[in-house]
Amino acid sequence: MELQFVEWLRSNLPPHRCLRIGLGDDAAVLQLVGQADCVVTVDMLSDGVDFHVGEVSAERIGRKALAVNLSDLAAMAARPLAAVVAITLPKAMGWELGKSLYMGMRPLAEEFDVAIAGGDTNSWDHPLAISVTAIGQMEGRPPLTRNGARPGDVVMVTGRFGGSILGHHFDFTPRIREAILLRREFDVHAGIDCSDGLAIDLHRICIESGCGAEIKTTSIPVSDAAHELSRRTGDSISPIEHALHDGEDFELILAVPPAEAARILEEQPLSVPVTEIGRFTEGRGFRQIDESGRRSPLEPHGFTHQLGT
Amino acid sequence: MELQFVEWLRSNLPPHRCLRIGLGDDAAVLQLVGQADCVVTVDMLSDGVDFHVGEVSAERIGRKALAVNLSDLAAMAARPLAAVVAITLPKAMGWELGKSLYMGMRPLAEEFDVAIAGGDTNSWDHPLAISVTAIGQMEGRPPLTRNGARPGDVVMVTGRFGGSILGHHFDFTPRIREAILLRREFDVHAGIDCSDGLAIDLHRICIESGCGAEIKTTSIPVSDAAHELSRRTGDSISPIEHALHDGEDFELILAVPPAEAARILEEQPLSVPVTEIGRFTEGRGFRQIDESGRRSPLEPHGFTHQLGT
Repeated sequence: MELQFVEWLRSNLPPHRCLRIGLGDDAAVLQLVGQADCVVTVDMLSDGVDFHVGEVSAERIGRKALAVNLSDLAAMAARPLAAVVAITLPKAMGWELGKSLYMGMRPLAEEFDVAIAGGDTNSWDHPLAISVTAIGQMEGRPPLTRNGARPGDVVMVTGRFGGSILGHHFDFTPRIREAILLRREFDVHAGIDCSDGLAIDLHRICIESGCGAEIKTTSIPVSDAAHELSRRTGDSISPIEHALHDGEDFELILAVPPAEAARILEEQPLSVPVTEIGRFTEGRGFRQIDESGRRSPLEPHGFTHQLGT
Repeated sequence: MELQFVEWLRSNLPPHRCLRIGLGDDAAVLQLVGQADCVVTVDMLSDGVDFHVGEVSAERIGRKALAVNLSDLAAMAARPLAAVVAITLPKAMGWELGKSLYMGMRPLAEEFDVAIAGGDTNSWDHPLAISVTAIGQMEGRPPLTRNGARPGDVVMVTGRFGGSILGHHFDFTPRIREAILLRREFDVHAGIDCSDGLAIDLHRICIESGCGAEIKTTSIPVSDAAHELSRRTGDSISPIEHALHDGEDFELILAVPPAEAARILEEQPLSVPVTEIGRFTEGRGFRQIDESGRRSPLEPHGFTHQLGT
């Protein structure tokens, strides 16, 4: 059956000019373009943690597995080129689940011109796990890293935050186009994609850059879903708290020098809004400023994997 | 804790000249050498299928997860450059298991000069799954593929086959050096690494190349472990049958034109024996020839993932 599965993949995944050798051999061979560097990222998603098989279609799961990796490439301002996919299917669900996962990746792969270059499909008596590795290349400019923020830089974000659990975490568009445009047209010092939460991911830039940050909570672009979630749950979590800590927004968080930030705010060069939400600061302080101007420590919490030891 | 885990990885994984950006950012950036193509492969291993946590050390599991991917690069005659690692840890076992997996990869990575470029470490309430993606580059010659065998080519193999379950599947050395040397010094038409079994993997070359094969069962180099397993199990599976169908030998199976095969047999240029075991043939026949010269169909079975649909 594995052979038939590979045949099915060959028939159902589009060819791509970068694939010198695609599916069906021991490895894929990618023809890179321009400079001989490549950008590589991997994310593993699993049933019960990142999605719930049965509650959502396999196509949306497959799409998410690819999209989270494209978002990591966006965080480097890299252009995606190819992806390889490793899946462990629950035995009871069979190959159809595998096919649907791939079918869910396909439109996103086509949108961003990504070759699905190969894969490994296994089975076991446990829930679904899917790991995608994405490979990209830079477009002339150096990679956008986490460690370039300087005190005085503006904290900027794309899009809106919070309540992703209501659906955005499956249907988001990785900010590839936005990151490449900003990297090309503006002087951006540092960047990350918001996967675990606005506060914790901004804090990661601070740690890597050796600086602090202050954000104005009233400036945070809060999604409709964050308001909706706050209403629904009635658990006294405000929409702003959802925006700060929910995670899986997959928006960009950027460090931009003030003059460039002003230019970005004025030009609004993206198809999504870019918002100034605070400043990077000297020292290691990590603070929020509320609507009355009062500063308080901002807890850099978000989604993390909690383990015993 | 994830941050501490990344810090631990940064302190415990060696630097590598190809890593422009390594662990701790959204993606790794690899500096490739020479021609701008890269070879990519991924394999996911899981508890209860490819190993049994508790019966074997985590270090050996980690080593195997990397080694099977290096074996796939060997099958292309590619030189490995870097690997990225995705792990889903069982929550009860904690980060120590993750650390041990990486520690098990480290000596093999150093032996083959492979950068461990990044990773994603998660947790859930189910058994361990680990996916490694290996990236390599060719050394001047084109990749060694499965589809180049021609009728009349000699079927050659490195090393010995069968009984891998007794330990070889953890401790094998990927045939990187052997594949690169053979590709550089000899005219080799096709190749594969034997992961699922000598018969099924040879058959894969036949399918991709559009030819058949005949092998002399008495020529197959049978490992001591195959004899040992045959004795132990007492289930009437002969050592040769173990050699044909056990899988996870991670030796090379090659298609070599006769004159080159004669030269390889005479020179024996590798640190492991290279053996002639048969011929590729016209048509699609797939046969074995026994000690009395009798031909019979060879079943191309080995390890495959059996699923319901």
